[in-house]
Amino acid sequence: MKVSELGEFGLIELFAEIVTKSRQEPLLVDIGDDAAAWRSDAPIQLATCDAMVQDVHFTLSTTGWRELGWKALSVNLSDIAAMGGTPKHALVSLGLPPDIEVDDVVQLYRGMAELASLFDVAVCGGDVVASPLVVLSIAVMGTAQEGQILTRAAARPGERIAVTGYLGASAAGLAMLKGGLKLDEETASSLREAHLKPYPRIREGQILARHGVRAAIDISDGLASDLAKVCQASGVGANLRMEKIPVHPLVSAAFPQDRLDLALSGGEDYELLFTASAEVIDRVKGLMPCPVSVIGEIVGEEVGRVRLLDERGREVRAKREGWEHFARGDDRFSKPG
Amino acid sequence: MKVSELGEFGLIELFAEIVTKSRQEPLLVDIGDDAAAWRSDAPIQLATCDAMVQDVHFTLSTTGWRELGWKALSVNLSDIAAMGGTPKHALVSLGLPPDIEVDDVVQLYRGMAELASLFDVAVCGGDVVASPLVVLSIAVMGTAQEGQILTRAAARPGERIAVTGYLGASAAGLAMLKGGLKLDEETASSLREAHLKPYPRIREGQILARHGVRAAIDISDGLASDLAKVCQASGVGANLRMEKIPVHPLVSAAFPQDRLDLALSGGEDYELLFTASAEVIDRVKGLMPCPVSVIGEIVGEEVGRVRLLDERGREVRAKREGWEHFARGDDRFSKPG
Repeated sequence: MKVSELGEFGLIELFAEIVTKSRQEPLLVDIGDDAAAWRSDAPIQLATCDAMVQDVHFTLSTTGWRELGWKALSVNLSDIAAMGGTPKHALVSLGLPPDIEVDDVVQLYRGMAELASLFDVAVCGGDVVASPLVVLSIAVMGTAQEGQILTRAAARPGERIAVTGYLGASAAGLAMLKGGLKLDEETASSLREAHLKPYPRIREGQILARHGVRAAIDISDGLASDLAKVCQASGVGANLRMEKIPVHPLVSAAFPQDRLDLALSGGEDYELLFTASAEVIDRVKGLMPCPVSVIGEIVGEEVGRVRLLDERGREVRAKREGWEHFARGDDRFSKPG
Repeated sequence: MKVSELGEFGLIELFAEIVTKSRQEPLLVDIGDDAAAWRSDAPIQLATCDAMVQDVHFTLSTTGWRELGWKALSVNLSDIAAMGGTPKHALVSLGLPPDIEVDDVVQLYRGMAELASLFDVAVCGGDVVASPLVVLSIAVMGTAQEGQILTRAAARPGERIAVTGYLGASAAGLAMLKGGLKLDEETASSLREAHLKPYPRIREGQILARHGVRAAIDISDGLASDLAKVCQASGVGANLRMEKIPVHPLVSAAFPQDRLDLALSGGEDYELLFTASAEVIDRVKGLMPCPVSVIGEIVGEEVGRVRLLDERGREVRAKREGWEHFARGDDRFSKPG
């Protein structure tokens, strides 16, 4: 059945069934009213949104519907993670061409619901409209505790720069999908998953916020670009140690030439990049459920600039394809997240 | 200058300047971080979102950019009004073709900012992405007081049905714009404004919520259709008194043939439709800053059905163009809001 045959109200009923099935506690007012309503006694509210447009941010030839649902929610949860917060509620605004199959959109909602239930996030409303292309815009609301928010503006000279997990796998997955590259099955599956099913670092962000870290961002545009944003917002500069960058082992093996570019500028890693004193980083390292790598330090000079240094401390002037996202006039504007 | 020349970050800076200029009090974290953050001590949080797609919900040939910004925000504020709440924060997700003029998008943001500042709503974040068509999805977060929420599910048999203001002017404005109808200048300007610059009934919704009304919806799809939704959600039926429907005087004058259809099924009025006991309605009538018309009553029979009655209480079976929005398979799915 096509979505135009089922119609708006039929679709909303179907979506509501999928996302309310696993609801832990009911909302005050759930899907189907003018707005969702819930009680909250958290002192601080957070909100973020991100849109994904067909053939701009994804193509249906390489992205499954279920993965699309997962990823669209995940990039938003990652933004809440980067604030050290707890995601609680999501609104889904969906534009659909009339000839899309209902079964496909059900898969999309199942992908979202799967991730939402992992983090106890209530998809509590949204909108379905006709559109010539698939457009998916998700808003996520969350909560935070007083004095425990991570921002881009809190990095200070002398602090270490650190990152969770490994980098480059998402961009490598995209390169593989786009280029139709044949890699061994295990590598292919891991890189595909890294690109299409990113896992938001919610718990990690909360640990950082609780244990003294104040500055963080999630890596969506790429390590170099996102670190530059932190520097700009904080009025500082950064030295990045090339050899310390945790390139994903599968990326190093499959893309030995481009490994560093993929890790520096590939983007969509959805790892957390954060800064703090050496002592704070030592402490949180032991508490984090994932690897943490110290990859450089914040400096007081050259505000907004990220200097890439080799093992001997000499500046490397990388200017390869991956860096082009810095350019103005990018038709794509940005990666989601 | 085209938006592709300015780029994502340039656009975000520009938008931030427009919407933060009139900010009454600063947010904890404003535009430019991974998420917005603010303190809230309200017991209940509300959230809603609505999308508008070019050539589905609006055309740039009849809608000015500034009006588009106003309307896209207004339909969301209207949803908060229909809950009896106070809108507080908005996120704007914007898809733009690369060749759109920056000046046009500035107008769009000014239209939003104008309405936002009227109601002290902080546009505190969002997303700008490339898209083949203009797509505008706005999420609005608000607050409500314990025990003072209006829902679609609270209508009870015996209650009166009432509506704020006058109906049909928005649909008449759309008909005029689409058909290129020539009406006298004053009528044309009023109908155009009714369609493109709807005014959300925020204050009215709060008065209803505070003074004992429990069931409401805002009229986006049309009086008949939206009343049917209240009936469905509440498990009741409704008798609608044809002669009591407050058709907008300009609509009656300019469209004498279609006046009732426009008021019943035209939609996008963004008036509040609510139900309450005769006593409660008498009381709120005196408190409301706008006209309130009692147009029928809730009944226990025929759940979900709206019966249209003439002056003598005989059922009228209207089945004209305007009623087609009930149909499945509507390519447009729905009106915003």
